[in-house]
Amino acid sequence: MVILGIDPGFSITGFGVISNEMGKTILREHGYLKLPTTKSLPERIGIFHAFFEEKINKHHVEAIALETPFLGKNAQNFLKLGYLRGILYLLSDKHKAELYEFAPREVKLAVTGFGGAEKEQVARVIYRLFPAISIVEKADVTDAIAITLCGLWKSKQKNSLAHNYLQMNR
Amino acid sequence: MVILGIDPGFSITGFGVISNEMGKTILREHGYLKLPTTKSLPERIGIFHAFFEEKINKHHVEAIALETPFLGKNAQNFLKLGYLRGILYLLSDKHKAELYEFAPREVKLAVTGFGGAEKEQVARVIYRLFPAISIVEKADVTDAIAITLCGLWKSKQKNSLAHNYLQMNR
Repeated sequence: MVILGIDPGFSITGFGVISNEMGKTILREHGYLKLPTTKSLPERIGIFHAFFEEKINKHHVEAIALETPFLGKNAQNFLKLGYLRGILYLLSDKHKAELYEFAPREVKLAVTGFGGAEKEQVARVIYRLFPAISIVEKADVTDAIAITLCGLWKSKQKNSLAHNYLQMNR
Repeated sequence: MVILGIDPGFSITGFGVISNEMGKTILREHGYLKLPTTKSLPERIGIFHAFFEEKINKHHVEAIALETPFLGKNAQNFLKLGYLRGILYLLSDKHKAELYEFAPREVKLAVTGFGGAEKEQVARVIYRLFPAISIVEKADVTDAIAITLCGLWKSKQKNSLAHNYLQMNR
């Protein structure tokens, strides 16, 4: 199973790619995309699309994990976040990658055990789980890795439910 | 010049395609897309993308015209509208079609001469300009044709400005 987790934003989009290989959780890639502010909106959307389509193809991504957005103070930012999410829905459809969505509270709870955890606390757990990654990563990246982990756990749950179901129906 | 004008919505998306051929304004196609509510969100986004990409290719669309959205009562609808707009930005970038955006007031003012016009008034003008279209079209369709017209006028303005500029700099 290969999961791509994304924390989209018009300034910084953090992402992580995690796979499960014979019970081992491997962080295959992580980082962020910074969209150039000098480009037009359609060009930036085009760059975003090409960037994540390349990741999906490169890692043979089977599911995409996202956080559910909430309406902040700025309605225009909320709408623009929708543009990026629309692109991810399109990629999910085109590449037959399942789409999992998690509320921010759900991600924090799953990773730290506390739904009201701060970003730093999430980051500390991610550093502990993946000691190889640099401790100076942006919160956008550690957040995205946390979202990716939730996606992996969700897909495992789904697969084991399907497995149990098959067992029961034998 | 060929313009595709779109009034996106998750239930109904109206559209029009208008070209200018030797000074004559021709409505090449108009109608609406209804997204099946039985499909998943990624699937519906995929259908929307494929539908408008086909229109762009078929008519060799050079510019896309849209209305600027405003935040209504329902923040979730506003976000979902963003998904569809994101797809149109992507298509604008991919097919090198310029993107024009107009405030709803601007469209009404340009078409009817009154920024506070009702949808019926916009529809009446559209029926008068294009007598061949059926009088029972949805408001989503007549609105989209009005947006398309604004796109055509804008592109003419731009071209004549560029033309004047070239003249001046000779």
